[in-house]
Amino acid sequence: MPNTVQQSPASCQLILMPSGRKGQVAIGTNLLDAARELGVELESICGGRQTCGKCQVIVEEGHFPKHGITSRSTHITEPSKLEREYDQEQPLNGRRLACAAQVLDDVLITVPDESQAHKQVIAKAATERTIEVNPAVRQLYVEIEPAVLGDPRGDWERLVQALQDQWQLSELVIDPKTLLSLQSILRAGEFAVTVSIWQDKEVLRLQPGYQEGLYGLAIDVGSTTVVAHLCDLRTGAVIATQSAMNPQVRFGEDLMSRISYINSEPQGLARMNRLIIKTLNDLAEKAAKDGKISPQDITDVVLVGNTVMHHILLGIDPAQLGVAPFALATYSALDLKARDLGLNLNNACRVHTLPLIAGHVGADNVGVMLAESPADHEGISLIVDVGTNAEIILGDPTQVLVASSPTGPAFEGAQITHGQRAAPGAIDRVRIDPQTLEPRIKVIGHPDWIEPQNDKDSLPQVKATGICGSGIIEAIAELFLAGIINSGGHFLPSTAERSARIQFDGPTASYILVNAELTATGVPILVTQNDVRAIQLAKAALYAGTKLLMDQRGVKAVDRVILAGAFGTFINPFHAMVLGLIPDCDLDHVVAIGNAAGDGARLALLNKNLRQKAVRLARSATYVETPLETTFQDEFVAALNIPHTTHSFPHLAGRLPEFPEESSRKRRSRLRTMQESNK
Amino acid sequence: MPNTVQQSPASCQLILMPSGRKGQVAIGTNLLDAARELGVELESICGGRQTCGKCQVIVEEGHFPKHGITSRSTHITEPSKLEREYDQEQPLNGRRLACAAQVLDDVLITVPDESQAHKQVIAKAATERTIEVNPAVRQLYVEIEPAVLGDPRGDWERLVQALQDQWQLSELVIDPKTLLSLQSILRAGEFAVTVSIWQDKEVLRLQPGYQEGLYGLAIDVGSTTVVAHLCDLRTGAVIATQSAMNPQVRFGEDLMSRISYINSEPQGLARMNRLIIKTLNDLAEKAAKDGKISPQDITDVVLVGNTVMHHILLGIDPAQLGVAPFALATYSALDLKARDLGLNLNNACRVHTLPLIAGHVGADNVGVMLAESPADHEGISLIVDVGTNAEIILGDPTQVLVASSPTGPAFEGAQITHGQRAAPGAIDRVRIDPQTLEPRIKVIGHPDWIEPQNDKDSLPQVKATGICGSGIIEAIAELFLAGIINSGGHFLPSTAERSARIQFDGPTASYILVNAELTATGVPILVTQNDVRAIQLAKAALYAGTKLLMDQRGVKAVDRVILAGAFGTFINPFHAMVLGLIPDCDLDHVVAIGNAAGDGARLALLNKNLRQKAVRLARSATYVETPLETTFQDEFVAALNIPHTTHSFPHLAGRLPEFPEESSRKRRSRLRTMQESNK
Repeated sequence: MPNTVQQSPASCQLILMPSGRKGQVAIGTNLLDAARELGVELESICGGRQTCGKCQVIVEEGHFPKHGITSRSTHITEPSKLEREYDQEQPLNGRRLACAAQVLDDVLITVPDESQAHKQVIAKAATERTIEVNPAVRQLYVEIEPAVLGDPRGDWERLVQALQDQWQLSELVIDPKTLLSLQSILRAGEFAVTVSIWQDKEVLRLQPGYQEGLYGLAIDVGSTTVVAHLCDLRTGAVIATQSAMNPQVRFGEDLMSRISYINSEPQGLARMNRLIIKTLNDLAEKAAKDGKISPQDITDVVLVGNTVMHHILLGIDPAQLGVAPFALATYSALDLKARDLGLNLNNACRVHTLPLIAGHVGADNVGVMLAESPADHEGISLIVDVGTNAEIILGDPTQVLVASSPTGPAFEGAQITHGQRAAPGAIDRVRIDPQTLEPRIKVIGHPDWIEPQNDKDSLPQVKATGICGSGIIEAIAELFLAGIINSGGHFLPSTAERSARIQFDGPTASYILVNAELTATGVPILVTQNDVRAIQLAKAALYAGTKLLMDQRGVKAVDRVILAGAFGTFINPFHAMVLGLIPDCDLDHVVAIGNAAGDGARLALLNKNLRQKAVRLARSATYVETPLETTFQDEFVAALNIPHTTHSFPHLAGRLPEFPEESSRKRRSRLRTMQESNK
Repeated sequence: MPNTVQQSPASCQLILMPSGRKGQVAIGTNLLDAARELGVELESICGGRQTCGKCQVIVEEGHFPKHGITSRSTHITEPSKLEREYDQEQPLNGRRLACAAQVLDDVLITVPDESQAHKQVIAKAATERTIEVNPAVRQLYVEIEPAVLGDPRGDWERLVQALQDQWQLSELVIDPKTLLSLQSILRAGEFAVTVSIWQDKEVLRLQPGYQEGLYGLAIDVGSTTVVAHLCDLRTGAVIATQSAMNPQVRFGEDLMSRISYINSEPQGLARMNRLIIKTLNDLAEKAAKDGKISPQDITDVVLVGNTVMHHILLGIDPAQLGVAPFALATYSALDLKARDLGLNLNNACRVHTLPLIAGHVGADNVGVMLAESPADHEGISLIVDVGTNAEIILGDPTQVLVASSPTGPAFEGAQITHGQRAAPGAIDRVRIDPQTLEPRIKVIGHPDWIEPQNDKDSLPQVKATGICGSGIIEAIAELFLAGIINSGGHFLPSTAERSARIQFDGPTASYILVNAELTATGVPILVTQNDVRAIQLAKAALYAGTKLLMDQRGVKAVDRVILAGAFGTFINPFHAMVLGLIPDCDLDHVVAIGNAAGDGARLALLNKNLRQKAVRLARSATYVETPLETTFQDEFVAALNIPHTTHSFPHLAGRLPEFPEESSRKRRSRLRTMQESNK
């Protein structure tokens, strides 16, 4: 030991960067314990045994006038034998193992990101922000007393004692399936074992000796698409993402059709449940393969989904969700076992489902709230999660309202003449030249904009097959902006004289987006009068729901709009507003964030405290039942026009076409007829 | 209402018999609530709705000078409309429904046994005693708010609220499988439901409307025999008992053979586990059929068994129990789900396993301690549970010691020339006339004593096939008492001159218990020199274990002896003592109680507090590892003689035969040789 020992005071100053925490610590304390005393938790799996290398720190050299100390590497004990051995195998490059290094004198330490116990990851959301990685499952290395004659305790009781002594855990239980392998694993590891523990309560997994690797799945079960993110629960990184179509689609695109199928088929529920569980198992297997791990390595899952998907997934008959009063079996967050659901992950793997809000507002919506909580932002936020049902969240730090609006599947490309899912071959972006009335399009799987009239050679290669949700929204907004359809959604006969793309066939008009000879199918891809009407109905339902919440909240405008949903990222905010999908707002404050429900699931997977927050958000949100509100029908009718009959859109000023004034009596009569014919 | 109302004071005197509890209660209180205030809990399922009829009480008429009150039936409100309706359907015969009847003036009430919430049942044990029926699962009727538009709560949350409001239960969870049927059952019962709740924590079962019937199984899994008692958890009554042979017997009579089989066969554990689970399912199904219920009505199970049976049943490899230091996977009591073990009972049925004590002292032994706790009796109690392993419990209220002694299967009829299990055809009792040396026997399935030499006609009808454990013990004790074998267990050649039943064939001697022409098999049933030796070894192991505990405890004698075990009830205490199976004791204080382990399981099934007591008993008992004790071998050798080399049996004074004195050197040498040859 260096000479400084004798000259040092009984305690010295320790400063930890980048947190800036500082304080007096007793000389001889190791840096792992000393940092903990100052409130900085370092990563450690081996529990201070100088073997896992997770607690590496940098000892800074020099005088730090701001802190008033001089820090030297000699102010720390020299590397121990174990530390030197570790360095030979995995070079420390001058860093020190905090558990090995003892403080001798004033010192300033930098804790690298990767050594922080609760790592920060950046949440991919409307506003980038960091979250702390603090998963529900953690992995601990522990050495237990070997069994000896005269000690009647079982191996489990010895392990419990070791976890109490070495990690201060108490009142532990063990999953009965995990208990089965306890004795053989303890002996394979010579009574050293790596334990995966859920919520500091239940032992899920045992691995012989020292092991690393802790994984979880965040899954969003949508009506149409199922997405699974495989995450490293130690670093917070997404290791693999896999998605698949929800195989229940064959029984109906929308939720009501699926409920009807279950109501009419005796084995309907079991069949639907089997299909979705098989899909989750396939996704997990593929994601595990991508991440070069085994599904057995996955010990935690967070699931979100709308109310019907949630119930079917758990094996609960969704019949009650199909009829008023739309009673849920439960709206609570649930902690389950993956094996009880039929998931082929680790034997003892946990499943957490986020809470639900009401009969039509599910765990997916709570996931959205977790990713984009209006309660965490000043001003009024509007979040619209567009799917077969649109969920609408409106609020600020004082109050959050939620509603669900039955938009139908038009936004997802269903009920549209050439509609299709967002997959290669789908037209997802559209522009129409107001002068020539000629289109430009983008097709999924092809990087460039295409002008069908000029790119006759390249278009057949991209094999356009139809239009997806974002494509139809842009197409109809562009038809309106180009003056081809009017505010009421009607094709104007005068435009047919200007371009052969506009066709009138009796009462049915259409716009030829891509000519027959240029599509993959050999038929032209059209946007028809019926398509316009379907989108008008869907967007009116969405707008009416939004308006209802704004009225309840007593606001005339919103400060920011967040568009979520599987195709949310592809919606152009300008086109969404032109169409009247969303109320007027500064376009710079309209953001499309994609699958926020899945992001919410990932957040709850990475941080157990966010699961409690999800429950608080769900329970504190005020649910507004749209059919209960008498103003809903009036708002719906007023919202059928493009962008809206009675609301103005100052932020679109100068960007909308002008049409001859329609008498208000005539307009009302037309809109009523339109609504009636679609009932 | 009668006139007395106006004249009554604001409170009056209530006396409850037979408890004698008394106190002032407010006028107008119903008797159910009033009794509860005075600490007397009445049975109720409907929660005071005047429909279940469980809270019936008798209102006494007359003056009670001891209590200083006059009680009248008019001091109680007249029967309500609902109560009169109940009376018409199921006559109350003058009794009152406590929940309907309100107190108006001083009154003395008798609470019949069947109306007490915690009923008393008589435990069938060495000393008859009553236990309180207070099961882990209880059944409650509850009415919940129907679902309505505008209430976003799920059905489960409404049920939770109702259970909180009507039964003061909080922090409830529901089994995930039970949640699946919640919505349909609530609607089938028009939002009234009978709930079965485990430990006031978890909802196990839901039945529409008002239902009665709460059942549990107490199961003792022995190495040879499995016994299941189906109990009514409300009354405590045993409704049906079923037993079967443990099908694992085919892989070995004793535990070591079964461990060897598992060690040598890759699928050995799975196979053994499947066999025992199938047996339990068969027993449950038969018992349910006897009790006219469905296995689905069974919501609680308590299991006991020795350590190896316990581990195999749970699916834990018992390999470690076969080698020193005999480490258990766990010695804790476990709360499991029946479905996780593969038991076909109610979907959410619970399983509780009693704790274990050490590698060789299992949950069966804790069951014995629960049924016959030495800690509850003054003086030193010795409890011997005779099986393939003998478990020995010695103690008094200050300390309880336990040990296991490897007696081998001789006491169960194995390793005996004509040994067999206790089944029809087995000779279970034997007497030998000391003058004629002729035997008298009893055969299972035949009520009368038989004298083979005189009952030549009747004997072939009873079809004697062999000798069971209790038969061989009596036979050898009687051979000794008749002077045919000496204290060393040697057949005396002189007796062969007196009776043809004693045969010498070179070094091997035998006694013909039944001649060939009179047995079912056509071969004579013998007791051979080898049989005597096998029993000597077994009883010496048992005695040595007992002596070890007595030495540790520092006692020279015991005050009572309890013989437990599957054939315990059939052991004659006198013969057991003559053979030296147990130490000297007043024969009036030696009791045989049969399957005490199964009784213990039944007690823990009927009273949840006894599960905690079982843990206390298991953890406070001091386990003595017999092979660790150097004195064990010496005690073993000394105990080979009949009844014992060095210990005296004053309570057998005058009842033992006299033999010529053997020199102590010669005796020691003979016993050592005997022990060596059997290693």
